[in-house]
Amino acid sequence: MAGEFDLIATYFRPLAGPEGLGLVDDAACVTVSGGADLIVTKDLIVEGVHFIGDEPAQDIAWKALAVNLSDLAAKGAAPSLYFLGLSLPADRPEAWVAEFASGLRACQDAFGVRLAGGDTTASRSGVTISITAMGSLPSGTMITRSGATVGNDIYVSGSLGDAALGLKMVQGDLDCAPALRDRYLRPMPRVGLGQMLRGVASACADVSDGLLADLGHICAASGVGARVDQVCLPLSGDAATLVGRDSALWPCVYSGGDDYELVFTAPREQAEHLVRIARDCDVPLMRIGVIEAGNECHLVDPEGNLVQSAHQGYQHFR
Amino acid sequence: MAGEFDLIATYFRPLAGPEGLGLVDDAACVTVSGGADLIVTKDLIVEGVHFIGDEPAQDIAWKALAVNLSDLAAKGAAPSLYFLGLSLPADRPEAWVAEFASGLRACQDAFGVRLAGGDTTASRSGVTISITAMGSLPSGTMITRSGATVGNDIYVSGSLGDAALGLKMVQGDLDCAPALRDRYLRPMPRVGLGQMLRGVASACADVSDGLLADLGHICAASGVGARVDQVCLPLSGDAATLVGRDSALWPCVYSGGDDYELVFTAPREQAEHLVRIARDCDVPLMRIGVIEAGNECHLVDPEGNLVQSAHQGYQHFR
Repeated sequence: MAGEFDLIATYFRPLAGPEGLGLVDDAACVTVSGGADLIVTKDLIVEGVHFIGDEPAQDIAWKALAVNLSDLAAKGAAPSLYFLGLSLPADRPEAWVAEFASGLRACQDAFGVRLAGGDTTASRSGVTISITAMGSLPSGTMITRSGATVGNDIYVSGSLGDAALGLKMVQGDLDCAPALRDRYLRPMPRVGLGQMLRGVASACADVSDGLLADLGHICAASGVGARVDQVCLPLSGDAATLVGRDSALWPCVYSGGDDYELVFTAPREQAEHLVRIARDCDVPLMRIGVIEAGNECHLVDPEGNLVQSAHQGYQHFR
Repeated sequence: MAGEFDLIATYFRPLAGPEGLGLVDDAACVTVSGGADLIVTKDLIVEGVHFIGDEPAQDIAWKALAVNLSDLAAKGAAPSLYFLGLSLPADRPEAWVAEFASGLRACQDAFGVRLAGGDTTASRSGVTISITAMGSLPSGTMITRSGATVGNDIYVSGSLGDAALGLKMVQGDLDCAPALRDRYLRPMPRVGLGQMLRGVASACADVSDGLLADLGHICAASGVGARVDQVCLPLSGDAATLVGRDSALWPCVYSGGDDYELVFTAPREQAEHLVRIARDCDVPLMRIGVIEAGNECHLVDPEGNLVQSAHQGYQHFR
């Protein structure tokens, strides 16, 4: 079996209309009349693949919805509705469903979205969650992955690596602060920030596959390269402590995934504006590098030595 | 575990906004500006639950999309886009995906819709397909399940029971015409008819759970009862032959499900208009009964004796 991206390119892109944006963005832009575009995203969350299965059902639900809202945030959309597909084994206790619903409630209240439909079915084994989320924005203002140009600054929100370190904690491989585990289980999509980046960011993606992988998606879609300074990567206090103690944990920061931060590019003249946006959103924004000519995405140390080149990040079937 | 409807009512309906229509319809009506409503539906299709697994992948894909288009047809919407979530085992041969995509192609071309996004992931076991489909119609013209009133005629399109008989053939329980098997594997949603029923039908549902079950959904939502004449139920020649030979097959006709016909109600004064619609759509429409006061849905024989009362049809977890 080919990798996920190859499968999509080979079999599904030929089926896609213009709203599907070639299926290289995580959301579709459906033009509706009245000056607004409707932005739609859809993620499947599979037990044994995206989650272990013994996490609290509230956390599974929160994350399933939050990752969709993160996709909308990366487009600059204001989220509004979501549709839930839930497939679960008949022997799953009803209490599990109740806890699952309470997790959805918590997440939808936190981000001001509402359930609007869906489907509930049995499964032969394990839980599968399918969420389709919708948001809107003024017509023509969606932030794509393809607008980065040479000389743009590269920014990332919040902090990186917490979720990957938290996953190691959940798996019993690392003893660390509970805040990191919570970061893995209950990501906070940058919904407010994303909307403020409309007209400011030239390209944007959410950090789900890992910083370098997602920045690599921007570079591939924009036809550019990137240089990222490792010393600029923003770490939480907890993550800095762990990475300072064991430098083998560094890949959690730049390739770990599940951060659900926004990585975006912007022209240099937006720098002051971005300081104000960071303040207004109460979200730290760190300039981590610059867009260059070429097609490679390099992470370099303070001496300019290559630490890591972008790789594809996680792909199913690989 | 409670039944599917109870689970939805208990856990998900409290989360639903007004667009979700109380989650008793299979589609959401999202008002967008500009005089159009966007209609959205979402179905999960699970291997070992909704399909056996050894059907041709083209047929699995066709049906997965067609059942969503059938939901849109029942609302009177013109379908436009769909989103695909596909979760499959890593050891599934790539040829399966190719065949699956060709089935999608066939169905989307047949009904004029386009893929607009989605998600492809691994699964731990079996294939799960999640499709979210969208259509539109003039604002405020969606056909609901709740508009049937006493004295309305009850109509059904096409013929009933073919798919249920075809399933018995697929399962090796019955030897019958290949056309019936095809009817089970490749349902033809009544996309054109549905749109012509806007402003004509007072209530509509597609026949997925079985005629009496889906008419029962209309009756429950409308607060009425129904009397259906068994002698009026439309049968294909193949089905009539089988049922004539073995009357134990009758439940395939009125409770079998998977027909993807439309069952709808209309005021008596629409009778002539419906004759023209049937002709224009080239779809037979049969008047099969009448809406009555009460809350029961009865199937009666020519002597007026009760053959069957509506039951719930298939429910997951039951």
